[in-house]
Amino acid sequence: MLSEFTIKYPAINSGTDKTTIKFYEGQADLLELFKKQHSEEKTGESCGASLAERRHIFVTDKTVSSLKSVIPFINSFTNGTSGGDVLLVLEAGEKYKTMESVLKIIKTALDHRLARHDVFVGIGGGVITDVTALAASLFKRGAVVEFVPTTLLAMVDAAVGGKTGCDFENYKNMIGTFYPAKTLYVFPHFLQTLSENEFRSGFAEALKTALLYSPSMYELIKKSGNDILSRKEDVLFTIITECVKAKAAVAESDFTEKNIRMQLNFGHTFGHALETVAGLGKVTHGDAVAWGIGRAACLSSNLKLCTSAYKDEILELLSSFGWETSAVHSSVKNLPDPAQKLIGAMKNDKKNDSSNVRLILQRGIADTVITEVKDGDILKVLSSGK
Amino acid sequence: MLSEFTIKYPAINSGTDKTTIKFYEGQADLLELFKKQHSEEKTGESCGASLAERRHIFVTDKTVSSLKSVIPFINSFTNGTSGGDVLLVLEAGEKYKTMESVLKIIKTALDHRLARHDVFVGIGGGVITDVTALAASLFKRGAVVEFVPTTLLAMVDAAVGGKTGCDFENYKNMIGTFYPAKTLYVFPHFLQTLSENEFRSGFAEALKTALLYSPSMYELIKKSGNDILSRKEDVLFTIITECVKAKAAVAESDFTEKNIRMQLNFGHTFGHALETVAGLGKVTHGDAVAWGIGRAACLSSNLKLCTSAYKDEILELLSSFGWETSAVHSSVKNLPDPAQKLIGAMKNDKKNDSSNVRLILQRGIADTVITEVKDGDILKVLSSGK
Repeated sequence: MLSEFTIKYPAINSGTDKTTIKFYEGQADLLELFKKQHSEEKTGESCGASLAERRHIFVTDKTVSSLKSVIPFINSFTNGTSGGDVLLVLEAGEKYKTMESVLKIIKTALDHRLARHDVFVGIGGGVITDVTALAASLFKRGAVVEFVPTTLLAMVDAAVGGKTGCDFENYKNMIGTFYPAKTLYVFPHFLQTLSENEFRSGFAEALKTALLYSPSMYELIKKSGNDILSRKEDVLFTIITECVKAKAAVAESDFTEKNIRMQLNFGHTFGHALETVAGLGKVTHGDAVAWGIGRAACLSSNLKLCTSAYKDEILELLSSFGWETSAVHSSVKNLPDPAQKLIGAMKNDKKNDSSNVRLILQRGIADTVITEVKDGDILKVLSSGK
Repeated sequence: MLSEFTIKYPAINSGTDKTTIKFYEGQADLLELFKKQHSEEKTGESCGASLAERRHIFVTDKTVSSLKSVIPFINSFTNGTSGGDVLLVLEAGEKYKTMESVLKIIKTALDHRLARHDVFVGIGGGVITDVTALAASLFKRGAVVEFVPTTLLAMVDAAVGGKTGCDFENYKNMIGTFYPAKTLYVFPHFLQTLSENEFRSGFAEALKTALLYSPSMYELIKKSGNDILSRKEDVLFTIITECVKAKAAVAESDFTEKNIRMQLNFGHTFGHALETVAGLGKVTHGDAVAWGIGRAACLSSNLKLCTSAYKDEILELLSSFGWETSAVHSSVKNLPDPAQKLIGAMKNDKKNDSSNVRLILQRGIADTVITEVKDGDILKVLSSGK
């Protein structure tokens, strides 16, 4: 070698250095929120343009755009524009969490000549927030992104913590960046518009967060089952706030998931495998995660990490919210040898670097361990009997 | 509003916290470099796998893969694999600097089950380094990337400083991330394989760097014209080293181009406009930039920022390397009203947020200003006569 030298780079904040989370009471008035609020903000920001001068591209989907509270906002656009702002309505659903959607957002922003100081706003569930943020992170090497999460999953999980992503061909979530949103506008009232499935799916992440980090939220969930299922806004507000704070604390200390952020995958290694083996879309993400939490609890108990009383309590709580707690989930029970298929899928998980499967297990509430587990122990909790 | 709180994120190093640049004498032996060297490195790294365990995806193009020095390396692969390593050969040229190429790289890595601690290696010019790094930055939210730059442009500019990108539909360089390479393996000997056009194109960026930052390199270039044009390796080695160090210093202090990094666009606002108006691919990037440097020098002199002697010296130097210094470049002289078209293109540049065009001009060597310029003053240096 002739010579060698080194360039050192400063650490940077991609997207933003902080996310401000604003909670609002009652039905969302997006016209009020974006049109009036932004025209009233007078102070400039470091990137050159004052907030009032910044244009927006709003990205949502057909389901959200037809919500009663959202229609007046949608109707304020003519041919996709309103003043300097742009609206893009994507098809709804997980199968549109694709690179095509991401590129469609970028193309719309380019065609309308948005600048890199302009703002991408995702209004919707986790699919919309993930693809909008990924598009923003790639647009001219990074525009600002903001979210209006409309599902419980997006409010407590997808919109918080800076992970963006999309699916690609048959690969789930394999393309993405770390790129947090600047502002989250949270209207718990949106939860009243969710289907039973969507609501329960999001609630699984809330329960997971409670088990990982918050004994007080766990107690609240145990005693407020009926209020939660009937979507009483004060209980939901408390749960969302606690979840966001817990996830924020984890993301703050381990933004790029080098260590403790992995705990957030509690229930997910089992859950992702179930989603894959059942066929994408057959089980909701939340139902799969809830089932996975039950499997992780059984495994924790079998390995003598936690007491069998703790495991039984979790299984009972899962059942009370309507989740399956059997070893063989109904969505795969007619397949030949589902346990082997599930283990195979777990080994392909992107977070798994080793030949043994690495799992997140618990010693008890808010006492979590990450450990490699032998196939035989995993098979045991995937086979009928336990 | 019900309540509000804030998550703070730590600043992170995307890609890597430092780039190590290694210079090698003589013809590149990539087999030696990657196969043997990596198997000899025994120390582990923070991301889990030791270097020896890491797999590589090598990305190159048809031009580079048919270079005499590269063929043995290419031939070590069978059906695109060699041991755990993977090879992808893309078509050559600017028109393959696309999202399709980026996704092809990611798909190849996924199909071969690479993990996020594995390494993407771009072997080629600026197109290959840009798309490979963009693919790496998106793969599972970020894999390591390394470069073997094979053109002068890539050695002095594209491979240094962490900008990744691709073109999209008719938009040039509008998608990208900030994501530096971990290692640059520089073999100045590759420059002997370049066509006259490619060599001159890269040299324009070296000249730009000298004018912006290095009076000593400027003197070297003035007195070594023949040695440079005949590609004497010792002169080229000095120039590449100086350029990389200068660009590194700028990238270190302004990684995401909030202020002084903009200076690196000296000659580029004119140059990009020329490329666009002439039609992509009609003028090389370097020839366009060199012409743009001449225009910026004339404008600097007209605005009394620099002396006319400095401007004349630059124009003479540009001529001596075969670049055009006339107000109307030959590639657009047969178009109706080229000056107006060029101004229009300058106003669409992604770095331009204002209604006036913002340009990088000079008071003299290593004395640069960024300033908004009136259309009339720009038109004057784009119209024959000056």
